[in-house]
Amino acid sequence: MNYYKKRTLSFDNAHIIDGYTVAGPKENDGRYKGFFDVALEDDMFGQNTFERAERKMFEHAIDGAIAKANLTNADIDAVVGGDLLNQIVSVSYAARKQHAGFLGLYNACATFVESLIIGANVLSNGFENVVCMAGSHFSTAERQYRYPLELGVLRSPVTQWTATGVGATVLSSKSEERVPRVTRATIGRVVDYGIMDANNMGAAMAPSACDTLVTFFKDTDTQPSDYDVIYTGDLGKLGSDILLDLTRQEGYDISEQLHDCGASLYWDEQQTYQGGSGAACSALVFNSVLLGRLRRGEYKRILLAGTGALMSPTTSFQGDTIPAITHLVEVTI
Amino acid sequence: MNYYKKRTLSFDNAHIIDGYTVAGPKENDGRYKGFFDVALEDDMFGQNTFERAERKMFEHAIDGAIAKANLTNADIDAVVGGDLLNQIVSVSYAARKQHAGFLGLYNACATFVESLIIGANVLSNGFENVVCMAGSHFSTAERQYRYPLELGVLRSPVTQWTATGVGATVLSSKSEERVPRVTRATIGRVVDYGIMDANNMGAAMAPSACDTLVTFFKDTDTQPSDYDVIYTGDLGKLGSDILLDLTRQEGYDISEQLHDCGASLYWDEQQTYQGGSGAACSALVFNSVLLGRLRRGEYKRILLAGTGALMSPTTSFQGDTIPAITHLVEVTI
Repeated sequence: MNYYKKRTLSFDNAHIIDGYTVAGPKENDGRYKGFFDVALEDDMFGQNTFERAERKMFEHAIDGAIAKANLTNADIDAVVGGDLLNQIVSVSYAARKQHAGFLGLYNACATFVESLIIGANVLSNGFENVVCMAGSHFSTAERQYRYPLELGVLRSPVTQWTATGVGATVLSSKSEERVPRVTRATIGRVVDYGIMDANNMGAAMAPSACDTLVTFFKDTDTQPSDYDVIYTGDLGKLGSDILLDLTRQEGYDISEQLHDCGASLYWDEQQTYQGGSGAACSALVFNSVLLGRLRRGEYKRILLAGTGALMSPTTSFQGDTIPAITHLVEVTI
Repeated sequence: MNYYKKRTLSFDNAHIIDGYTVAGPKENDGRYKGFFDVALEDDMFGQNTFERAERKMFEHAIDGAIAKANLTNADIDAVVGGDLLNQIVSVSYAARKQHAGFLGLYNACATFVESLIIGANVLSNGFENVVCMAGSHFSTAERQYRYPLELGVLRSPVTQWTATGVGATVLSSKSEERVPRVTRATIGRVVDYGIMDANNMGAAMAPSACDTLVTFFKDTDTQPSDYDVIYTGDLGKLGSDILLDLTRQEGYDISEQLHDCGASLYWDEQQTYQGGSGAACSALVFNSVLLGRLRRGEYKRILLAGTGALMSPTTSFQGDTIPAITHLVEVTI
């Protein structure tokens, strides 16, 4: 890969007050059962469409995160986030119920980490509390990006399973207690290795994850061993193997540290093949498991690298390749 | 309206080095003929699909803005922006050709002002040069949001015409010359007045424009008369009339200052009814006409309020109302 230039920012005051997660039923049957704040019994969440269920998950996650952080709606300056639906309608409609400002984002499954980065940036300029969030829903994503569920299309063994869930983080410019902080971030660039198989997104995203991780290590003069763990968003099993190879070629061995939120979300028996994908993966795992381990001191310093594939059904129909992006945050306590 | 809380940020170092515009043929036949850096002869721009034409407009605008600012691609830290296509594929694919980082945004037609706000925020944290941008294309938007062009559907008199164009601004943390600067910004909140007619977006967006403008005046203790002009993004003629009424009810008379980028873009003979809409409106008018007048000292202090309607075809099909958002920047020289 080419190392072009520094793309890493530092933050002094991006305190992670708390995180909140709303997970789907399949996700709460997986490896992190019981770690989530709310687990749905069915993925309709009492609504009459899947899209409204996804919106309700966002509404719950915003309110839940604010309450868990011992704040009220009036304390929140901005909601920052996105989802995978066209025109990011889930988070946009959910934000109607808040008094806070709203900054809508879209970087596919890298959106959760993008929201942490932009949230940390607005705190540096005078806002006090922001909610950073992203999520996805299997049933809305499947019918928007692939096929109607009713069609029962057979899945290829290189596919992943779009996770159902929303994760929200309350970032504050001040904290009376010692809490984890977003200390540095690398803004990803768009990397396109010419992959055309929309069922194999791990392969499309791995080169971008390598680009951002190596840029971060060079920008900050750090090594993988400086970190307790490095979590990627949703490379899946195959994508993670490709990333290990690519980073090794660049002189960085991350095999001791690397985990993938998507690949770790489900048990093998749940037949998701390469694991989970979707904006929910990093949002769910970070705001439950990882934040818990940081708060308990089990981790001191971690990297979270949100991975996103930037195509649409239209670009696939028109014969375009799949560009990808990876945004990274360093979280320290 | 309810004034909830301060949502205005200040910036010290968001210098507007230059702006660049790529306009469609109908737009360059309009009121601002000759003001654009590039005007297309036809809206296919030498490509085989409208979507690829839109992407090429973004590619040209990024490179054009960088060159006009006397910078090279290697000087740019990040491209920040969005477009109206599903998964914002126009700007995402265009950003592949850059070495810079990429932050993808979506706030409908408020995206250009959102990009200026987020660009100004990342400059405060150490980046030196960013390209902020947004745009739209009549032919891609029409077939994605409404009907296939081939159907020849009759348009209602309350409709607007999606503008074809891309506008890009180079923001830098330093400037050797005296240039316009983004000095303050109000982050909009999502406002939903229950409008359900997707052909009448001016009515859906006007309450949100009122909310953000009045919040800005209260946050900063300013009055409309402190500004040479106040430009909204794409309220259109009807939406602008509604905004005048709404702000008057709140005690602010903006009738001397108010203009709308969309409403002013075309001549009446061009039969766009309420004027232009789309993310291109504010991006085109700001980066050509308004920036020129600021640089020549004809304006000293202006407000640009990007207006966006946050629905999707899916939410309309499911019977939802249309929420809207307005982000605002103060630009001073």
